[in-house]
Amino acid sequence: MGSTPPADNLVTENPDHVHIMPPDDVHVICPTDYFSGPGKKVLLLLNQEIKLPVAAVQQVWDASQLRICADGGANQLYEYSLKHGLDWLPDFVIGDLDSLRPEVSIFYKSKGVKVKQQASQYYSDLDKAITLSNLALLDPTINLDDYDDYDGVSKHEESVTDTIQDKVSVFMMGSIGGRFDHTVSTISKLIKLHHTRPNFQFIVRNSEYNEYILFIPKGRNFVTLLQEKEYHRGEKLVKGKLPLVGLLPLACPVRLSTSGLKWDVTNWESSIEGKVSANNLLVGDNGFLVDTTGPIFVNIEI
Amino acid sequence: MGSTPPADNLVTENPDHVHIMPPDDVHVICPTDYFSGPGKKVLLLLNQEIKLPVAAVQQVWDASQLRICADGGANQLYEYSLKHGLDWLPDFVIGDLDSLRPEVSIFYKSKGVKVKQQASQYYSDLDKAITLSNLALLDPTINLDDYDDYDGVSKHEESVTDTIQDKVSVFMMGSIGGRFDHTVSTISKLIKLHHTRPNFQFIVRNSEYNEYILFIPKGRNFVTLLQEKEYHRGEKLVKGKLPLVGLLPLACPVRLSTSGLKWDVTNWESSIEGKVSANNLLVGDNGFLVDTTGPIFVNIEI
Repeated sequence: MGSTPPADNLVTENPDHVHIMPPDDVHVICPTDYFSGPGKKVLLLLNQEIKLPVAAVQQVWDASQLRICADGGANQLYEYSLKHGLDWLPDFVIGDLDSLRPEVSIFYKSKGVKVKQQASQYYSDLDKAITLSNLALLDPTINLDDYDDYDGVSKHEESVTDTIQDKVSVFMMGSIGGRFDHTVSTISKLIKLHHTRPNFQFIVRNSEYNEYILFIPKGRNFVTLLQEKEYHRGEKLVKGKLPLVGLLPLACPVRLSTSGLKWDVTNWESSIEGKVSANNLLVGDNGFLVDTTGPIFVNIEI
Repeated sequence: MGSTPPADNLVTENPDHVHIMPPDDVHVICPTDYFSGPGKKVLLLLNQEIKLPVAAVQQVWDASQLRICADGGANQLYEYSLKHGLDWLPDFVIGDLDSLRPEVSIFYKSKGVKVKQQASQYYSDLDKAITLSNLALLDPTINLDDYDDYDGVSKHEESVTDTIQDKVSVFMMGSIGGRFDHTVSTISKLIKLHHTRPNFQFIVRNSEYNEYILFIPKGRNFVTLLQEKEYHRGEKLVKGKLPLVGLLPLACPVRLSTSGLKWDVTNWESSIEGKVSANNLLVGDNGFLVDTTGPIFVNIEI
């Protein structure tokens, strides 16, 4: 790649407002579709303190058809509910349950929440929660007592031949920003899930900072926080601070081309061992286009 | 690599105590050397809230010969000092200074702290702070007024032919766990710094969770939290919970062999798109050995 002419590897600085409309054939990634777009909606809570305001969590809670705590994620929901006087109950608590506190387990069981141990260490708690999401969407009357406490739920899924035809959006809280191996495991898992569960889309919410972390597949993608009906027709909107955006080549080295960022790139080599466009800004009025030769992650400020 | 016989790709479960001594020729990585080991010690504070207890930060502060705030890192030190009644003053504040709050700048300047703008966006604030570390260790009387406010400090370093012969340990706080592109930028930078500043060793402290995040170069490494004089001579020590360890192949796919972990691996393929050993545990009484075909990161619970 060292022989690429410099003109192929451009960075262009844009003004603070650029009109961008998504082409018809582009893959649209819109995390706010979770709140009113089509498809199934699943909230996964992992074991990290929930530090967001109630209104923000409530919006996600209300939009979800299924709410699952992965192991100690139940502790976090319990603490958050206590602190804010909420009576929210998840549909399921699942995992090896080595982190679930006894009083939390007793409390949720007493309220009728299904708390299911899956002791196997072959699968992570996140794996187990995603498997259960799929099964519970396929069969809302699923009875987890039918499956053993070791890896019965995962084994059952292997025997199921039905698949969900709808798009499934999974909103993950508590999976980025705490223990560093948890963060890296989440990233690694999202790369693999793109292949193993192609109809699932994952929205990761930083539990502390106002940003989404999104998996962007190879190809042409349009990343936006607006739903289609909200697209602007070229007018300049009064806006505050430009939202921060990072283009993060965590899976493999890539070449990127973008439109709608303050520093747009064209056929730009990016890798974790080389150049990374962090600290970029969104200037596209409706979002930005990113064409990538391999999967990347994007963080975008809310 | 798919043709490798399975026997080469082993995971072995160990008991909770294994006696491990580092071989003579191994590269030792010991973050607690910062507190009393040889070499120069530099504390870099970045722009993330400091959530550690005063005793933990004090230990780092006292061990440091040079303390540098990168841009908004000064805001964090200021807030932390106010909250805990500390009169700590950094040696320098450097960066593009777009995050430094005016009252913080005025306060530190009034106390004689050198606040130096370097406006260039070609270098990150972390780059600028590391460049200044090198220059201020080479010349403790350096006068930053001699260099322009755009990129004078970096340009000056390019003209310097002296190099520090000592090992330099840089303790970084506030660089992992906040905004996700900051975390990824830090990781990317550490991979590159291994080549560009081979005598610098970086210790990253998670600012919220009790762990170090360490860069592990290609080859045979011994990772420990004990200084050499503290190595145990085989006796079983009374210990509490086993410290968590993650082996994180963020730079490139690798093959790993370890000794001293609960789940030791032998010639084990690991990559972010494949298998990652997160959630492992330290069982070696003095630390653990890791032999890797490429750079990785390790997180280790304190």
